[in-house]
Amino acid sequence: MKTTKRKNMPPKERRDQLLGCAQILFFSKGFEDTTVQDVLDLAGVSKGGFYHHFKSKDELLFGVLDGMAEGVFSQMDLVASDETSSALKLLRSFTHLRANYLREHDYPGQVEFFRVMNQDKNLVLLEQFKRRVRTGAMPVLTRIIQKGRDDGTFNVADVDTAAELILFLSTFMDLALLRAIEARGTDTADHAARNLQAAIDMQFQTIDRILGLPDGTTDFGWPEAVDVTMATEPPPPPSIN
Amino acid sequence: MKTTKRKNMPPKERRDQLLGCAQILFFSKGFEDTTVQDVLDLAGVSKGGFYHHFKSKDELLFGVLDGMAEGVFSQMDLVASDETSSALKLLRSFTHLRANYLREHDYPGQVEFFRVMNQDKNLVLLEQFKRRVRTGAMPVLTRIIQKGRDDGTFNVADVDTAAELILFLSTFMDLALLRAIEARGTDTADHAARNLQAAIDMQFQTIDRILGLPDGTTDFGWPEAVDVTMATEPPPPPSIN
Repeated sequence: MKTTKRKNMPPKERRDQLLGCAQILFFSKGFEDTTVQDVLDLAGVSKGGFYHHFKSKDELLFGVLDGMAEGVFSQMDLVASDETSSALKLLRSFTHLRANYLREHDYPGQVEFFRVMNQDKNLVLLEQFKRRVRTGAMPVLTRIIQKGRDDGTFNVADVDTAAELILFLSTFMDLALLRAIEARGTDTADHAARNLQAAIDMQFQTIDRILGLPDGTTDFGWPEAVDVTMATEPPPPPSIN
Repeated sequence: MKTTKRKNMPPKERRDQLLGCAQILFFSKGFEDTTVQDVLDLAGVSKGGFYHHFKSKDELLFGVLDGMAEGVFSQMDLVASDETSSALKLLRSFTHLRANYLREHDYPGQVEFFRVMNQDKNLVLLEQFKRRVRTGAMPVLTRIIQKGRDDGTFNVADVDTAAELILFLSTFMDLALLRAIEARGTDTADHAARNLQAAIDMQFQTIDRILGLPDGTTDFGWPEAVDVTMATEPPPPPSIN
């Protein structure tokens, strides 16, 4: 992507352009291997123009994570605003949001980004992002569970705690996902892939059981997720110089 | 605790003494407010003697966390080595381990330590500690669940994933616990206490449901936990100088 210098771009537009360029680079090269200079080059922006908007590469990363969260939240609002649907249909739409996002936004790039974000040095940012998504999702999921309890679809003691637990569970598969993407191209790939599928299945079975629903009611919404994940490229081994 | 200088203490003993002093100070003053000098003063050790064992205050904290993990692991081994008990009795002993540890080790000090460890700047250490505990607990819990599936007590599809999910759930109550201890002494204390109880109850109900057990089979093992937590002292407000 080649962009031309446009000195008079309005601030909001310039900020969004920088974030868009950063996201492309973070997904393709990974966060660690992307320099602020790479972002400047792709955006056609001067150092001064950049630092007017962002203090550091970390702040840029935070902006990208924020943008991803906003994308999920706007989909959540769409789900929640559908007054005519049953609680069960709303719940299914809600549990499919993550898979829909992953499928529609350069999945191999997201896998690489996920791998880098789970390295120790990025854990604080990742934890802050997870908390932000959970906090943003709470009102939507609470409303869905309340509706289902009111009409007798869900059998649950405490609506708020159930919503919080289901959101907490949404990162359970991340442990198995991380192991699976690290096993790509090795002898343990098949084993790790089966464990990832088991983690996904158990996550949704547990959601069913928390809400008093028959097993198999909710699912991830992307049956090919494990195959697609294992088919992404492992990063090249670090070069020895 | 007043200790005397003992220049000829063997290295392992000296290391343990420094860790013991650090734990006392971290629990009573909090990690942030404890300086390396405080530890030296309490242990009666010189700077050189300290840096022979630990590179930094962070490394000292890691040692304290490690010691706490070891304490839990040795209890786990005791539980797991009991060949004659039923799977259900072993499971109950396992789910009570955390409450037993909390009750028996200066609980108000642990609450203050927990509060500080959950601050953003300490999240990496905390996450590493949690992973270490989960990794150490996996073989023990897996063996218990396998035993219960073999004899028909538990109805569960994938033993490893069930063990991993139950260990993952063991930190669910931490969110509500953190909010509860931050609410101590404020108008929202009662509300936060009720939410903490609901989170504890739902965590164990979910363990029951994952394993196909009747609700109420497992519990935290410390009925007074919420009352005891709310009765600990909030830290003094930061002084304005």
